[in-house]
Amino acid sequence: MLEVVAASAADDPLTSVMGVIQVVLEYVGTIAFAISGAVAAGRKRMDLVGVVVLACLVAVGGGTLRDVLVGNLPVFWVRNPTYLLVAILTAIAVVALTRTRALDVLQRFHVIQVSDAAGMAVFVVTGTNVALAAGASDISAAIIGVLSGVGGGIIRDILADEVPDVLRSGQFYATAALAGAAVYVGLLALDVDPLLVFWIPIVLILVIRLVSLRFGWGVPTFSYGAPD
Amino acid sequence: MLEVVAASAADDPLTSVMGVIQVVLEYVGTIAFAISGAVAAGRKRMDLVGVVVLACLVAVGGGTLRDVLVGNLPVFWVRNPTYLLVAILTAIAVVALTRTRALDVLQRFHVIQVSDAAGMAVFVVTGTNVALAAGASDISAAIIGVLSGVGGGIIRDILADEVPDVLRSGQFYATAALAGAAVYVGLLALDVDPLLVFWIPIVLILVIRLVSLRFGWGVPTFSYGAPD
Amino acid sequence: MLEVVAASAADDPLTSVMGVIQVVLEYVGTIAFAISGAVAAGRKRMDLVGVVVLACLVAVGGGTLRDVLVGNLPVFWVRNPTYLLVAILTAIAVVALTRTRALDVLQRFHVIQVSDAAGMAVFVVTGTNVALAAGASDISAAIIGVLSGVGGGIIRDILADEVPDVLRSGQFYATAALAGAAVYVGLLALDVDPLLVFWIPIVLILVIRLVSLRFGWGVPTFSYGAPD
Repeated sequence: MLEVVAASAADDPLTSVMGVIQVVLEYVGTIAFAISGAVAAGRKRMDLVGVVVLACLVAVGGGTLRDVLVGNLPVFWVRNPTYLLVAILTAIAVVALTRTRALDVLQRFHVIQVSDAAGMAVFVVTGTNVALAAGASDISAAIIGVLSGVGGGIIRDILADEVPDVLRSGQFYATAALAGAAVYVGLLALDVDPLLVFWIPIVLILVIRLVSLRFGWGVPTFSYGAPD
Repeated sequence: MLEVVAASAADDPLTSVMGVIQVVLEYVGTIAFAISGAVAAGRKRMDLVGVVVLACLVAVGGGTLRDVLVGNLPVFWVRNPTYLLVAILTAIAVVALTRTRALDVLQRFHVIQVSDAAGMAVFVVTGTNVALAAGASDISAAIIGVLSGVGGGIIRDILADEVPDVLRSGQFYATAALAGAAVYVGLLALDVDPLLVFWIPIVLILVIRLVSLRFGWGVPTFSYGAPD
Repeated sequence: MLEVVAASAADDPLTSVMGVIQVVLEYVGTIAFAISGAVAAGRKRMDLVGVVVLACLVAVGGGTLRDVLVGNLPVFWVRNPTYLLVAILTAIAVVALTRTRALDVLQRFHVIQVSDAAGMAVFVVTGTNVALAAGASDISAAIIGVLSGVGGGIIRDILADEVPDVLRSGQFYATAALAGAAVYVGLLALDVDPLLVFWIPIVLILVIRLVSLRFGWGVPTFSYGAPD
């Protein structure tokens, strides 16, 4: 998942640090995504199988869509199940912690929302990168980057039998992802320092997400005809 | 998407005209499909992100399913984002035109339904063709052709949290697609003139669609056990 | 779908018998899965197109997911449409038999549930096998095996606009599949006789399914926050 960014960085301490931070962000995002899947399963009164499956789908769903669409097969978790294991352990922890107040504390201090934003940001950048490496056009690569970041949440909501939140919440979520992916592609074309190419879109996505959460900013909704 | 049909036609003015008409029909279909996605998003009060995503999914969803199932990867829009761009612009136009009466006029004169039928017809034929070129058996190729034509609408309805219309409307829609795909495969086997092989199924699909819309003909529904 | 298990067995009468039994179980499972799809379509008052499509999706959906994720493309039914044809004929038979009491008799004697369990068991084992042959890690192969067995039912419930039954029924279904896949991978690692490697997981899945159906055993459900 990370080779493309990390490969050229092997000898450079600064970018090696970057590589480590990237992996840390990916696991932070995997855990945050898995929590959102497990919580959605709890809201729908699913059984433990549903909790684990939903946690895994949110965690690896975006990357799986990306790998299928660009033809990176088998998909990334077939050879390396680490991300799946992290998601499964997270799901079990969520169930175990429900009787304590741990989840409420995490939510009161917005830990889950910030982790989700960080994970989404890094998934968008690595997803765009994987698509470019597979020969995608700039526009298509940005769209695959967005899908890598938001696809897991869409699959979660489909399985929970709801209209995907990202399509109707009116929040800057997919919009933040698209801004980050577009800036990433643009910076690559401008031949900017790799460190900036990597970090500017991630910081941009985080700032858009957090500012929009704080002030309730977002995109307008569209209403046409009678509701079904 | 079109190479298979168009390739052998480069020197033949008659079939070159056919190639141009095919491309025109594909864009007509892409626009009609994108309108149906944007309108569904409006009915569900989605935000602008949802409008654009649904428009794109209906427009390229069937072809994407086709490419994944036969292993034509990366999928067609990864290298060439033109169809996605057309769908995005269509989605924006739908939102902009809602305050005018343009959409109502289009619907009163059945422009959208006829365009949808024309697009579906050409997607079925090219989809069947792509599957045959990938080594599919005749029956499988016809089924992939049907999926290419109706898959986008199925994905739209899943995201809008509904039972897919094509599975329960009782209209001749997937049935028209299947008739066209079967006739296409049969004409190929009979070694008929390429022009007829291409046009007979498209005209057949259009006629079945329009006659069934006009007279309300369709397939019976099936009822078993208590509704959920 | 069966090459991996069956290939090495060509000269051995005992394992050739095994190969035949495996194919029989696969068709039994395909028919049982197709019946569940057709019945779900009837409950949702779909039309005949919906009945056939749902029957096909349950029957070949799990194997299709498996082939896409490991990159076995085109998917298995593109070259050999036999499983699709069996599912289509089953769907037509279900509609024809509704006016008789045949389906009720089948259900009273649990024929459909036992056939479903047998089919699911063999799909889990062959799915795990296909994933291992494609280079999957043990854990990933087991998960793909589970998806091969339960994926068709998940797709059925998504199209019927419901939360997938396997995620919330509280029954030992995916759990039985996971136990079978894990035991299969474990027995392979222990280099046990191929006949036992094949049959122990299948019998295990069948026993867990039937015992849990008989005594109502299952996994606990998880409830968190207000229902949506």
